[in-house]
Amino acid sequence: MNGGIHILPVARMPEVRPGDDLNEAILNSAGNDLRDGDILIVTHKVISKAEGRLVALADVEPSPFARDFAARNGKDARQVEVVLRESKRIVRMVGGLIIAETRHGFICANAGVDASNVPGNDTVCLLPEDPDASARRILAAVKDRLGLSRVAVIATDSFGRPWRAGITNIAVGVAGISPLTDYRGGKDPHGYDLEASVLAVADELAAASELVMNKVDAVPAAIVRGYPFKAAEGSATELVMPPERDLFR
Amino acid sequence: MNGGIHILPVARMPEVRPGDDLNEAILNSAGNDLRDGDILIVTHKVISKAEGRLVALADVEPSPFARDFAARNGKDARQVEVVLRESKRIVRMVGGLIIAETRHGFICANAGVDASNVPGNDTVCLLPEDPDASARRILAAVKDRLGLSRVAVIATDSFGRPWRAGITNIAVGVAGISPLTDYRGGKDPHGYDLEASVLAVADELAAASELVMNKVDAVPAAIVRGYPFKAAEGSATELVMPPERDLFR
Repeated sequence: MNGGIHILPVARMPEVRPGDDLNEAILNSAGNDLRDGDILIVTHKVISKAEGRLVALADVEPSPFARDFAARNGKDARQVEVVLRESKRIVRMVGGLIIAETRHGFICANAGVDASNVPGNDTVCLLPEDPDASARRILAAVKDRLGLSRVAVIATDSFGRPWRAGITNIAVGVAGISPLTDYRGGKDPHGYDLEASVLAVADELAAASELVMNKVDAVPAAIVRGYPFKAAEGSATELVMPPERDLFR
Repeated sequence: MNGGIHILPVARMPEVRPGDDLNEAILNSAGNDLRDGDILIVTHKVISKAEGRLVALADVEPSPFARDFAARNGKDARQVEVVLRESKRIVRMVGGLIIAETRHGFICANAGVDASNVPGNDTVCLLPEDPDASARRILAAVKDRLGLSRVAVIATDSFGRPWRAGITNIAVGVAGISPLTDYRGGKDPHGYDLEASVLAVADELAAASELVMNKVDAVPAAIVRGYPFKAAEGSATELVMPPERDLFR
């Protein structure tokens, strides 16, 4: 049994605050461990914190629509207002939950607005403004400071999905890796054309990293070693299915 | 950096044919490597083959509905017929694709009927009749023959999903592990209640295993080592969201 993949937690990172140098924090924690061929996976939460994507609810003036929806569902109107501001389109409002399309094109609960793992009871965390750009900045720092050439960065969040219970970690930002592996045009060992086989490997890598980043210990990053990824500029927008091609929607 | 998870491919398995002893094939290939604490992940494809869940299209008499749908979409009417027979409910028919709910409750393309990695041009492969039972049989053999006590088995398939591009590996059968990890009632390091945090860890483990099982090399199984899973009888039905609670549907 040779090869295999190793998933290593990056557990020593200090609490990141707005304005902190995230690259410095990541390099201090993971720098000694990172090698060529590695994929560094970072929860969007520490990226959002470092980028100041935190909103103090005390500063939010809810709209009449947010107030009305919150009152009818026992929710905090200011939090509802933040969700609406992060939404490009409301997909569904069920009970107190809002399923929304974010400006990035992601469809998720509460437009990615989250109150967990954020200090202070009245602060919520948004997705990064441009998670691909965030991943690219981390990748540039890793390559530059560690002298590595073949590395990649994936920023993650945990999303629910239709039809299945539980949330799973997925990729919201990608740099240095093709997020999809396209086996179309290839053949399996029986010579069968693999025409329907485009694998969302960035989502699988994100899911794998979650196994060492549990919510309670709040491990903010992981290293995946031994996966022969396809180097590319990459973008998480490749993982957003265009509506006209989405057979499951 | 301590701990971490290792994902090992089980690459030496011979081609499995209907009636073959799958447990024997798995134990011959992975037996020397399996240890207490491991999760053995097996693609449903080898399970289905061993269980004879293959259909020769020459033996299939398509219904008028299947003939009509196939003719209008340039599909093989016999294959459409097999998909309909595997479906409890048609969720959507788009172009030539059928999104269906299987008898297990899974919602996927073509009710899980698949022609890839199957010998012969005119044979298709179905999902196992009861993938939990299949996983339990493999688990019993592993425990019994190797004298292990703390192991688990997950059977997988690759499904598409709404809104996102590409397919990912998910769990269709589970034995010896709780497929969901429920952090509700727990607190994050800031004391925030983790009320919305039920993680579909069996799906994340399935996704992780796919990274060493690529379609072209057809690695049929993998071992995940180092993940502190919650031992339980387990069932993949826990991963099927009841429609009345499915906020994303």
